[in-house]
Amino acid sequence: MKSHRQELWFETPERRGYLNITAKVEAALAKSAVQEGLCLVNAMHITASVYINDDEPGLLHDYDKWLEKLAPHEPVAGYHHNRTGEDNADAHMKRQIVGREVVVAITAGKLDLGPWEQIFYGEFDGRRKKRVLVKIIGE
Amino acid sequence: MKSHRQELWFETPERRGYLNITAKVEAALAKSAVQEGLCLVNAMHITASVYINDDEPGLLHDYDKWLEKLAPHEPVAGYHHNRTGEDNADAHMKRQIVGREVVVAITAGKLDLGPWEQIFYGEFDGRRKKRVLVKIIGE
Amino acid sequence: MKSHRQELWFETPERRGYLNITAKVEAALAKSAVQEGLCLVNAMHITASVYINDDEPGLLHDYDKWLEKLAPHEPVAGYHHNRTGEDNADAHMKRQIVGREVVVAITAGKLDLGPWEQIFYGEFDGRRKKRVLVKIIGE
Repeated sequence: MKSHRQELWFETPERRGYLNITAKVEAALAKSAVQEGLCLVNAMHITASVYINDDEPGLLHDYDKWLEKLAPHEPVAGYHHNRTGEDNADAHMKRQIVGREVVVAITAGKLDLGPWEQIFYGEFDGRRKKRVLVKIIGE
Repeated sequence: MKSHRQELWFETPERRGYLNITAKVEAALAKSAVQEGLCLVNAMHITASVYINDDEPGLLHDYDKWLEKLAPHEPVAGYHHNRTGEDNADAHMKRQIVGREVVVAITAGKLDLGPWEQIFYGEFDGRRKKRVLVKIIGE
Repeated sequence: MKSHRQELWFETPERRGYLNITAKVEAALAKSAVQEGLCLVNAMHITASVYINDDEPGLLHDYDKWLEKLAPHEPVAGYHHNRTGEDNADAHMKRQIVGREVVVAITAGKLDLGPWEQIFYGEFDGRRKKRVLVKIIGE
């Protein structure tokens, strides 16, 4: 069994952002030389997500608006978590809806994705450097 | 290490539908001959989900109503994504709540599920043929 | 390839509860003797979750309040599922938001977690003994 571990670092200029990281995960897979296996991609921070969906600007706009409706940033004082001095309680919730991780099949040395599947980093408390972990196992 | 890859195809007659696919995943596992390992089951489309929950008609009704409340289909024009000519922005959101994939343990050649765990395909933009990927690795 | 399977049992005194199970998963990993691989941790019940987030009491309070807002327990009769004699339809929904499982990378014999990542058992229909499955594969 082979394994490969790699960190990807991101810093979004705004509090929230959605970055297509598919090419970076593909590059990690190429380094691993794994032909058949599984690829785990997860946020290492608890106010960010890794998820798979469409790379369409209108949809990213809709996601952002929708997440803000389901777990609003304001009022900041409405969350007990923010009494710790943080203002990111909403980010912990948004991340829970969108998810921490994806597991992608590896077949014949490639990410085995459907035609529109793109891997995204979803940031809900940005403006600082944060990490994604790529862990690949297989043969 | 062994690996096995199989696609399952579905077409729901309505826009939304919930199909118990446990037996189909079990059949894929039997083909793989894997005794100990992991089984990834994921939607290959970004307006559908694979998830694990109860096969109880009342619950499926409740899920559908609840998802429609959290991410309503109408008004279609309320989503920027639908300006591309699509009318399925809500389906992208419903899928994000329900999830893209499940990873199931394989123990002694069987899916290692709890007593009520059933694997479902959740469709949020149906009426056309769509795929689920089953990827099994182990020994 | 090595594999290891272990069940963890929990009983929360209230209907809902959030338990940090990271040390228990670490103990299972130590037993497995796996150095490089993947660790699946999933609820075996469909009204409970395994998820990764912060171990901060204010946040756990916020989560609970937020989940109750998105999928309220009352009115019990508002859910078709509860016509079966259950009163836990809301728990099936809360679990779907929070998720069934996490997959954690194993690197150099340790859970490869970010600095604040803690593994939680989220219970939404407690007051009875319920199980979590830990399945580890690797070398």
